[in-house]
Amino acid sequence: MAAGPSVAPTLSAAASTALLTDRYELTMLQAALRSGAAHRRSVFEVFTRRLPDGRRYGVLAGTGRVLDAIANFRFDTAQLDWLADQRVVDEPTLRWLADYRFTGDVTGYPEGEVYFPGSPLLTVEGSFAEAVILETVILSILNFDSAVAAAASRMTAAAGERPCIEMGARRAHESAAVAAARAAYVAGFAATSDLQAGFSHGIPTTGTAAHAFTLLHDTEKDAFTAQIASMGTGTTLLVDTYDLAEAVRTAVEVAGPELGAVRIDSGDLTLLAHRVRRQLDDLGARQTRIIVTSDLDEYAIAALAAAPVDGYGVGTSLVTGSGHPTCAMVYKLVARAASADPDAPLVPVAKRSAGAKSSLGGRKWAARRLDADGVAEAEVVGTGEVPAELADRLLQVPLVRGGEPVGREPLAAVRERHRRAVAGLPLSATQLSRGEPVLPTELVLG
Amino acid sequence: MAAGPSVAPTLSAAASTALLTDRYELTMLQAALRSGAAHRRSVFEVFTRRLPDGRRYGVLAGTGRVLDAIANFRFDTAQLDWLADQRVVDEPTLRWLADYRFTGDVTGYPEGEVYFPGSPLLTVEGSFAEAVILETVILSILNFDSAVAAAASRMTAAAGERPCIEMGARRAHESAAVAAARAAYVAGFAATSDLQAGFSHGIPTTGTAAHAFTLLHDTEKDAFTAQIASMGTGTTLLVDTYDLAEAVRTAVEVAGPELGAVRIDSGDLTLLAHRVRRQLDDLGARQTRIIVTSDLDEYAIAALAAAPVDGYGVGTSLVTGSGHPTCAMVYKLVARAASADPDAPLVPVAKRSAGAKSSLGGRKWAARRLDADGVAEAEVVGTGEVPAELADRLLQVPLVRGGEPVGREPLAAVRERHRRAVAGLPLSATQLSRGEPVLPTELVLG
Repeated sequence: MAAGPSVAPTLSAAASTALLTDRYELTMLQAALRSGAAHRRSVFEVFTRRLPDGRRYGVLAGTGRVLDAIANFRFDTAQLDWLADQRVVDEPTLRWLADYRFTGDVTGYPEGEVYFPGSPLLTVEGSFAEAVILETVILSILNFDSAVAAAASRMTAAAGERPCIEMGARRAHESAAVAAARAAYVAGFAATSDLQAGFSHGIPTTGTAAHAFTLLHDTEKDAFTAQIASMGTGTTLLVDTYDLAEAVRTAVEVAGPELGAVRIDSGDLTLLAHRVRRQLDDLGARQTRIIVTSDLDEYAIAALAAAPVDGYGVGTSLVTGSGHPTCAMVYKLVARAASADPDAPLVPVAKRSAGAKSSLGGRKWAARRLDADGVAEAEVVGTGEVPAELADRLLQVPLVRGGEPVGREPLAAVRERHRRAVAGLPLSATQLSRGEPVLPTELVLG
Repeated sequence: MAAGPSVAPTLSAAASTALLTDRYELTMLQAALRSGAAHRRSVFEVFTRRLPDGRRYGVLAGTGRVLDAIANFRFDTAQLDWLADQRVVDEPTLRWLADYRFTGDVTGYPEGEVYFPGSPLLTVEGSFAEAVILETVILSILNFDSAVAAAASRMTAAAGERPCIEMGARRAHESAAVAAARAAYVAGFAATSDLQAGFSHGIPTTGTAAHAFTLLHDTEKDAFTAQIASMGTGTTLLVDTYDLAEAVRTAVEVAGPELGAVRIDSGDLTLLAHRVRRQLDDLGARQTRIIVTSDLDEYAIAALAAAPVDGYGVGTSLVTGSGHPTCAMVYKLVARAASADPDAPLVPVAKRSAGAKSSLGGRKWAARRLDADGVAEAEVVGTGEVPAELADRLLQVPLVRGGEPVGREPLAAVRERHRRAVAGLPLSATQLSRGEPVLPTELVLG
């Protein structure tokens, strides 16, 4: 395992993000340019009406990727030619898109922070035109990354001091896998198997070996000998290709008691971990660690708490959000000017049809109120003036100012913020059982 | 809506896929290069041990993207420098990677085909070295794309002749969304909202308008007037921002009876569709279509079969595989030569530990046996000789020969194959109720 700084942009960080966009964003733009309403100053908010069923808190992840996506939201000639060829939008709109760059402001919860229903996670302010077309890519990033981070946070809480390793690349779209590794790292995972995540985001990478490596060789002993010869005795040997007890014996025979770790990838992990620990100790390999993998999720990790396990490799369940592979975040217009005049006052707006999808108009602030012991007791979301007693508990920070990103930060800081945010919640936050959000959201209408 | 040919590569099609790879693939490579076993001819197979609980068939999607990923699996200088800097692998391995290009063969089920537990979906043959390192990216693509295609296939079956429109971009990782639109199109979706999917894959794109567009304007009538002025009367107006009945009246007042469609995005869709249909008919807008959206899945689509609905917009449920956001496909070494001699015979290999993860060694063929009426009755998977009566029902086709892709095909052909494949299954295949795979998998050991 090796940590490293971010030495290169993400796979497609330099690529334009402009077409990662629903067609209707551009046709609404065209219609609004024609009606003149496109130039009304507008405020959009990202929030979610609910957490996934039974979850105690949400985890915001992807904000750093959103800043890159906004910076790379530019239309190049090939894209504009295609839009023209397909008659997606008209000539005036194409000219407007050709010059596009976001010049507005973005504020929001800092990445890694926890959130609750109604938390104003990202506020985008600019002309309607410049802000509306960012909707799709912003939601794509935040909905996916936050879904993975929420699952990861439950897993690292269940794992306690033992490291969790992200190894779900093969169970997710190949680029989503990189974002998943990043989100898992934000929420406390120690490392990832995904090399691109190491390359793009500086996340420590790690790995063991597959059954194929053992099967390739004539005997398990040949395979272990080859791996030790190449990787040193500190490596992790996979011991469940044939007979587990024989494999552990062979592993220590070949590597000696300095063997770094063994990996168990099938069977009753609790039972096998105890059996292998005893065998390793009997063989004098008392420092050799036991890594378990095999469809782990937060519940399986919690169930292994009393087993002699030294690390968890988590794949499928992590990259699919442990039952909740996306969040329900939306991007809603909450206020807009009454005219295109830059000084026109903002008017709160909200959908008000009969269904369950109504929302509250007006730009929101948010604060986390603490009890006398300094433990969070409520998420307070409001419009208008911030009550004085909450002034130093405000959650939103500037992310983009006049089109310039001002909120970039190293992942280590994001990770530390997440750790502190969870530590500041009531203890029941990390219970795995289903329940209500651990903090109520209180609305203060100004 | 406009269809178009593929005019440009995918967002990152030209980018290297080489680091979309688990670290252990490269360290196994290093150890095998050192032991000499890396040069043994090897056969890897992609298959799944089970379908998601209750599903009747699987749908293979992503094969075309796999061919691109193999072609773009090259290590550039920045990647090699990073691998060296991080000490992921040693110098001899770095030199081997610098020259890497896949020179082997790939065969498999053609894209769009249905599959069952044990179907050999992709067979990769080459040296262990060149084949093992493709594992992660191949599984990433097939597991994600096939999960979406399987859900899409159930939805288009439930929708019958009515079009399904993919609009889930905001609920998936931004690049995964593009692959999801492609997979949905393979499985019969008519169009996507995702512009990048149109740009990269030539999928028809379409769209309506969001509530924000109505809220931006001073009145709903202003918004509808602006949209009609810009997009023409054939556009789709969103009618549930305020009062539905009033919005429908305003829509026809502004657009006339030529109004293309209205979209309903909340509420009891069956009830509202009937009400809106009656109102449109009373207003003389008998040709105006009704499009429904709002957390649809295959069950909701089926429940709307008797309602006067003309099209379904599907988002979250589609891009998250309708409860099964990934497949359980694995990439297993099933045979390898006994030595590095190119003429050495292949030896079947398989994991044989006690757990549930054992698998069958040896390269497989696969055929779909038909009954007297020409309806599929079994998926037959075997090793060794193909029985004569199945010789014209073989499923696998050549995809790569000597490193050169030979299996590329237009999406229209893939889409048509999928349609025919489902039509060839027993009728119970498209039942939405939970059940066993609609075809049994029969094993023939040669």
